[in-house]
Amino acid sequence: MTFKRTIIASVIIAATASFAFAGSHGGNPAVKARKAHMQLYAHNLGILGAMAKGETEYSADAASAAANNLVALANMSGMSYWAPGTSNAELGEETRALPAIWEAGSKAGEIAGQLREGAAALAAVAGNGQEALGPALGPVGGACAACHKDYRQSNN
Amino acid sequence: MTFKRTIIASVIIAATASFAFAGSHGGNPAVKARKAHMQLYAHNLGILGAMAKGETEYSADAASAAANNLVALANMSGMSYWAPGTSNAELGEETRALPAIWEAGSKAGEIAGQLREGAAALAAVAGNGQEALGPALGPVGGACAACHKDYRQSNN
Repeated sequence: MTFKRTIIASVIIAATASFAFAGSHGGNPAVKARKAHMQLYAHNLGILGAMAKGETEYSADAASAAANNLVALANMSGMSYWAPGTSNAELGEETRALPAIWEAGSKAGEIAGQLREGAAALAAVAGNGQEALGPALGPVGGACAACHKDYRQSNN
Repeated sequence: MTFKRTIIASVIIAATASFAFAGSHGGNPAVKARKAHMQLYAHNLGILGAMAKGETEYSADAASAAANNLVALANMSGMSYWAPGTSNAELGEETRALPAIWEAGSKAGEIAGQLREGAAALAAVAGNGQEALGPALGPVGGACAACHKDYRQSNN
């Protein structure tokens, strides 16, 4: 290993090691990543939902930022998170992802497309005023609910 | 409230409620969101680091997907996560974010810019072969390390 390669390896190790924050230890990496991804959907959707319902003051900047974050999240690649072999049939209670996600006829990919479209439409109007948020959140929330209904283990 | 508005509100409530997955309860929302964001950096950086070090087989598709995810993450708005009043001086052990992030002379924003540039340069070459990864990961890891060094409470 050359000196340059040693430096590069050290930087990579330092960077990855520095991410070992509390709460990140153990568990399936794909499950942890997709839960983090869902957490960020929830965070940004929560900001927009609260503004839509009038629970928090509308801010065009904050609404646009949250909607653009949803667009970014919806367009990220999930290929490493949604790996075959990571359903609740294989991993148990660590995840609520049902095997149907990966089975023939799965509409999970199609619903993900609806989420991307819904998020883009939401981002296009999120800065236009509080009244624009509710109607534009409908299709986004619908995609969330559709996927959870058929592809996530119910808590009941 | 009209029928249409009732429907919209119901969809929003259903969508946000459906995100209440295990592990997301309690805690400061900004802290939870930024930890999720960091988790996604770690996940994608881990994939690239393992390929760069030869621990996992190189895949142009997987490398590009991970690098593009880093670009998306680095370009997301952090305005709702990095809210003033959410340092470890205010929130205690829930977070390791130091007050210096928000103080005059903070270089956190500048380092975030370096991360955006590094991620873009990485994404531009990630599909070009295993050898391209190490050098391109250097600036990304450097930005991670620089921010953690000065703006995150040490565990020591």
